[in-house]
Amino acid sequence: MTEQNLQAADAAERTVAWVDDLIDRFASLSETHGSDGVTRLGYTPLERRAHQVFATFMSDLGLSVHSDTAGNTIAELAGDGRCDGIGTGSHLDSVPHGGRFDGIVGVVAAMLCAQTLTSSGYQPRHPLRFVVFANEEGARFGQACNGSRLAAGTTDAEALGELRDRDGISVLEAMHSVGLDPERLNDARWRREDWDSFVEVHIEQGSVLADGADDIGIVDTISGSTRLRLTVHGVASHSGGTPMLARHDALVSASAIVLAANALARDPEHFGTRITIGRIVASPNSMTTIPGEVTLDVDIRDVDTDRQRQTALALIAKAKELALLHETSLDAHLIADTAPTLLSHRLVELASHETDRLGMVHRVLPSGASHDTQQISHVCETGMLFVPSRHGGVSHSPDEFSRTDDIARGVQVLTGLVKALDLTDRQPRS
Amino acid sequence: MTEQNLQAADAAERTVAWVDDLIDRFASLSETHGSDGVTRLGYTPLERRAHQVFATFMSDLGLSVHSDTAGNTIAELAGDGRCDGIGTGSHLDSVPHGGRFDGIVGVVAAMLCAQTLTSSGYQPRHPLRFVVFANEEGARFGQACNGSRLAAGTTDAEALGELRDRDGISVLEAMHSVGLDPERLNDARWRREDWDSFVEVHIEQGSVLADGADDIGIVDTISGSTRLRLTVHGVASHSGGTPMLARHDALVSASAIVLAANALARDPEHFGTRITIGRIVASPNSMTTIPGEVTLDVDIRDVDTDRQRQTALALIAKAKELALLHETSLDAHLIADTAPTLLSHRLVELASHETDRLGMVHRVLPSGASHDTQQISHVCETGMLFVPSRHGGVSHSPDEFSRTDDIARGVQVLTGLVKALDLTDRQPRS
Repeated sequence: MTEQNLQAADAAERTVAWVDDLIDRFASLSETHGSDGVTRLGYTPLERRAHQVFATFMSDLGLSVHSDTAGNTIAELAGDGRCDGIGTGSHLDSVPHGGRFDGIVGVVAAMLCAQTLTSSGYQPRHPLRFVVFANEEGARFGQACNGSRLAAGTTDAEALGELRDRDGISVLEAMHSVGLDPERLNDARWRREDWDSFVEVHIEQGSVLADGADDIGIVDTISGSTRLRLTVHGVASHSGGTPMLARHDALVSASAIVLAANALARDPEHFGTRITIGRIVASPNSMTTIPGEVTLDVDIRDVDTDRQRQTALALIAKAKELALLHETSLDAHLIADTAPTLLSHRLVELASHETDRLGMVHRVLPSGASHDTQQISHVCETGMLFVPSRHGGVSHSPDEFSRTDDIARGVQVLTGLVKALDLTDRQPRS
Repeated sequence: MTEQNLQAADAAERTVAWVDDLIDRFASLSETHGSDGVTRLGYTPLERRAHQVFATFMSDLGLSVHSDTAGNTIAELAGDGRCDGIGTGSHLDSVPHGGRFDGIVGVVAAMLCAQTLTSSGYQPRHPLRFVVFANEEGARFGQACNGSRLAAGTTDAEALGELRDRDGISVLEAMHSVGLDPERLNDARWRREDWDSFVEVHIEQGSVLADGADDIGIVDTISGSTRLRLTVHGVASHSGGTPMLARHDALVSASAIVLAANALARDPEHFGTRITIGRIVASPNSMTTIPGEVTLDVDIRDVDTDRQRQTALALIAKAKELALLHETSLDAHLIADTAPTLLSHRLVELASHETDRLGMVHRVLPSGASHDTQQISHVCETGMLFVPSRHGGVSHSPDEFSRTDDIARGVQVLTGLVKALDLTDRQPRS
């Protein structure tokens, strides 16, 4: 082995140890533990403590760190003063009872990329910015990517005042409660002239890479997501005193709608569409009362904009028909609607070149999940790297799992890609 | 008008005013108000305060009042010392977001019966006992008629230690928290030799009486109830990253089970059976996660014991089949099982005679709902009077409604029936 090879092997071993340590450290900041998974919702004190772990780590590497009014945390390694910034990062919030890797892997990759670059004395031309976005998961307020939306200017204080969690707390109130200043949200907006490009590392949250024995994925498109709240109105009544023929059971209607949504997404015409009803709330939800009202939260994902919207309209029409059939009525309300996003072809090519150089097998694939990168696409060129998910690709679950060596490979490709971007002159903006 | 008629009209007018006043007084003791209905769960401080209102009212009439170790409150008007007791009463707890009349009407009828008898100086042969049973609704712990079960000896401390509410609090812990002494539950047991008969007034919780323009109902049988908890186990996973064909969606299976239960109860073979799935809990219940586990609470009611049990077994078999079909699995757990009850033919006849004497139109009908009287049937002869429910018979809902004049008629028939029972010598026990 040459000395250079030995140093590279040493560095790789150190990266593996750091990956495990950092992932454990973030997993310990959780409302729930062990088989109950990780619960660290957006705009809670636990999410803020996770951002602080990131900030301290980056400060210790000598980077300048600041937190913006959206709650995003940004660490910068200064460039030569003549170029716009290259960014990487992800998020540190989780869904309720989620896994240890979603979002975290991209933040850990950013931290270890910064560590590799600073420890080797790398002097970038472009300022390199390592970013943790706040409140990425839509689980709490129904709309995903809050911090990156504010950075991209795709939401504002008025819209965030409308979004509320199940306790009735609005996004603005939640921000205020963790010491953020929602009065100055415009300060968090990124200016296009400050940014060259942005790359996010994330777990796949599917099993395409593991099934194909690929080392890493390079994302070319991100699915869009249309989110609906369907509320069925029936009549609450006594389970013993009410004959079957006199019932207006909101749960019977809601169940017919769940099955219709499932059938619609499995229909060949809609193949590639995914429809999920992840949340159901029945009222009064008591064993001896026929449910008077049931709310269903629906998430429709597609890489085809038109098909995504058509599916939403078809589902609403079918749900109204089923509600009437079972002698109830239905309200449909649009919670969020994001179109699919095409990522930068240049970044896909640079990333492919980098994985080839490192002797890794990559696959170019679409992302089913939405990501902060989708929002940042409104600001600059963007790319994404996927680390394989194991356990059949399960995510948003305590069973979510990615292997340490796969994550370390993600760090390697990211570091190479950031350097390649730093050395390449940007193509003229269209 | 004769003086006697005038006095009777006066008394009726006073009864009407008292009915409204007492129903308002109990409705004000609630966690929720107005259109959110009444919430006064069993073994909570609010239920205890309602019992105290009853106790004070009865003490003021000169009755001796005591509370037993089950939390039942009993007021006694002494007899001539040679006969066993005649009882009447109902319960004061409610379901979450319930109505103002369920249970309350029977307690108010008992209070105004006592008031009518004491104000006229009536001297009973039998001790007359006016009873409020504790924790009748199955809503909190899954099993109904807790206080009357303890009086009848159809449950015990061991069984009650197993039943828990959704916060994990057992019946025994709940009793302890409101100052009851669950160590001495046997003291609450009624002895057969102390009791002649028991009559409960209750709202119909159905629309048979109102639809038939009847003044009052006389119950001949009470439906049984078999209660199941069905838990579907799937795999929680990301709503974007998981293709439709790779899903194990517990809510899709649960929805198929809800529709199958509804179809089973509407099937001509099971006509008369009622199946309700009143409570559904999905986990993790987040918009962006496929549900990994869903729990359904099922209530199966019938007046035919065999058909009730056969329906429960058929539903479990069908639910297992549907869970497998949708690539999930199912656990079924029996929460409670009560057989249908035949009430006393003698009491039906005495009550019919009393309504005829008062010039009212009555109907003999079965009860779909379960009642404390079902438990007390293990101790002595029992009967029930139904006051018409309006608003289509809706119950366990804020829309539950019975008219004041209908309730006042219930008080009149109850008072007459109690006097008739007091004057009639009991038939030999079989």
